[in-house]
Amino acid sequence: MQGHPFGSHRSIEPQNVLPQPAWKLDTRLPLYDNELLIDVEALNVDSASFKQLKEEAQGDESQLKQNVMNLIQTRGKLHNPVTGSGGMLIGKVQERGASYPHRWDIGDRVASLVSLTLTPLHIDEIVDMNLRTGQIHVRGYAILFESSPLAKLPSDLLDPLSLALLDVCGAPAQVERLVQTGDTVLVLGAGGKSGLLSTYQAQKSAGRTGKVLALEYDSAQVETVQKLGIADTVWQGDARDSLQVYEKVVDETAERLADVVINCVNVDQTEMSSILCTKDGGTAYFFSMATSFTAAALGAEGVGKDIKLMMGNGYASGHAELTLELIREHPQMKQVLLETYAPSAFNRETTD
Amino acid sequence: MQGHPFGSHRSIEPQNVLPQPAWKLDTRLPLYDNELLIDVEALNVDSASFKQLKEEAQGDESQLKQNVMNLIQTRGKLHNPVTGSGGMLIGKVQERGASYPHRWDIGDRVASLVSLTLTPLHIDEIVDMNLRTGQIHVRGYAILFESSPLAKLPSDLLDPLSLALLDVCGAPAQVERLVQTGDTVLVLGAGGKSGLLSTYQAQKSAGRTGKVLALEYDSAQVETVQKLGIADTVWQGDARDSLQVYEKVVDETAERLADVVINCVNVDQTEMSSILCTKDGGTAYFFSMATSFTAAALGAEGVGKDIKLMMGNGYASGHAELTLELIREHPQMKQVLLETYAPSAFNRETTD
Repeated sequence: MQGHPFGSHRSIEPQNVLPQPAWKLDTRLPLYDNELLIDVEALNVDSASFKQLKEEAQGDESQLKQNVMNLIQTRGKLHNPVTGSGGMLIGKVQERGASYPHRWDIGDRVASLVSLTLTPLHIDEIVDMNLRTGQIHVRGYAILFESSPLAKLPSDLLDPLSLALLDVCGAPAQVERLVQTGDTVLVLGAGGKSGLLSTYQAQKSAGRTGKVLALEYDSAQVETVQKLGIADTVWQGDARDSLQVYEKVVDETAERLADVVINCVNVDQTEMSSILCTKDGGTAYFFSMATSFTAAALGAEGVGKDIKLMMGNGYASGHAELTLELIREHPQMKQVLLETYAPSAFNRETTD
Repeated sequence: MQGHPFGSHRSIEPQNVLPQPAWKLDTRLPLYDNELLIDVEALNVDSASFKQLKEEAQGDESQLKQNVMNLIQTRGKLHNPVTGSGGMLIGKVQERGASYPHRWDIGDRVASLVSLTLTPLHIDEIVDMNLRTGQIHVRGYAILFESSPLAKLPSDLLDPLSLALLDVCGAPAQVERLVQTGDTVLVLGAGGKSGLLSTYQAQKSAGRTGKVLALEYDSAQVETVQKLGIADTVWQGDARDSLQVYEKVVDETAERLADVVINCVNVDQTEMSSILCTKDGGTAYFFSMATSFTAAALGAEGVGKDIKLMMGNGYASGHAELTLELIREHPQMKQVLLETYAPSAFNRETTD
């Protein structure tokens, strides 16, 4: 039987809607003819979602595991109802529907490039959980649609690193499109993984005549950004304190402000820092899932800022390849990300 | 005494933040030196906010008035905590702080082009309320900052019409920038005021070689759009039913989809209609305050759409003039908007 290319045949609450807005998905087998069955190995929970889930469990790990299991069972997908966000997964191709294009072989190790908020997911067990990174080792299966982008896992990188990179690969790809030679770019939340990748891409795109300013809240991550040499100015600050951030950027740019501001912060109320620091005619790009649409739209109007307000699109043609290349060409950044995202619990058998 | 140019000196809960994200503003007089005092005549409540307030009052008009009064008293501004949106106001310039630029004379009739979500507002009385349009006649005052854009009310248009137009003047101004000659444009929610203005501007910008498709939920408004001749195809439909909207646009465009989709719908869950109907490389522009950031960002990723996702910026240089000119050159549309927005309760003394 043929399912809908966008997966609406899996929506059961309500029916006949797309799987992302649906409250609940049908995860039952057998596969429809245009679906792909994945034997799931690990989930990478979206940063905003994992933060909320940890807060809800008040630091109790077994409670956190139980909450994640309940969430997946209730909705048939890992779609956090509070943050509205999900994450992505890696696994092996287990079965291909009769009419699903022959792009992958059975046994291929792949990462889904589509959010878990719309991916039918069934979990039997949580094997292990990394509280720092939001990576969860599981036993279970997921169903991918004909329209869902996938990437084959690269053999030269450790899985947890690939998973972490592919989860945010839209960010550097969008930066590459937005930033022009000579631009001044401000990255808010430069020390997280999307922040590091975006900052490095901004430096490449802006070139020697451009300037990259990087704000980070966490002191250790401030040092990391400095050490990697991917920004002209790096400082510790709170992106929610928009007036303080603005004063700093006014100073750093001789009041010209930034052509492009990239927001990678995973807490809310940072919209105004992005907006105030963008020069008239420039672009404020919001990659953070904690962004409030109304705060951004009304905030720009409120201070009379004639700027473009863009929402981060996690999909961009060629984004996976661009991001994997980015990390291959910067061994020091690769090392930093490996230390964070490739702890011993995962992939003991794989070497890098 | 000099206030902060962005108005942060008026934020009292919490302090030292911008007035938009602040929970509560200080509305006390006297004025700071760089402020402007407005004797408020009327408020134009944002469509999404007014809809929510009416639902909360369950159709009871006196309850609705009381709720609006309470909201303004509680927050020192008309900032709906559920929808996050506000609206704008008209009134007379009553007092100019010593250092406020001499752009206006005392007694000038003006409209604020800044959201009520960040405007200190004190109301003594609600005189009258139009349940259909969300326009509220009041006695009270508002305080505008040095950074807040304003427009002098035009003498050739009735006040309620000017107020209604200026409230959404960002929409047609952004359409004018986005749409190129020959583009196919889809407007969702084409029958409301921002919809009508955006649709007409899209027709002007796309030109004879372009194509404008207009979706509207309300049957009477569908007829209005048809009668005005501002779109090539107009149909009645529900923008929340993204799959149905998509099928229709596939048919109308021979599967090429739209270069630009403008979302002016004031209900939620319409993000996917915008996204599915935008061609790869195109732009989905969200003017609706009911837009969910995560639904849009993850939705595009979920269906592998390589498109620009833009949030509607209510401010654009020259937006007030563009919008007023737009309505002057289309007498039939002006008549339609007059019938809706200039009921007898307002401005009996003014003639058009």
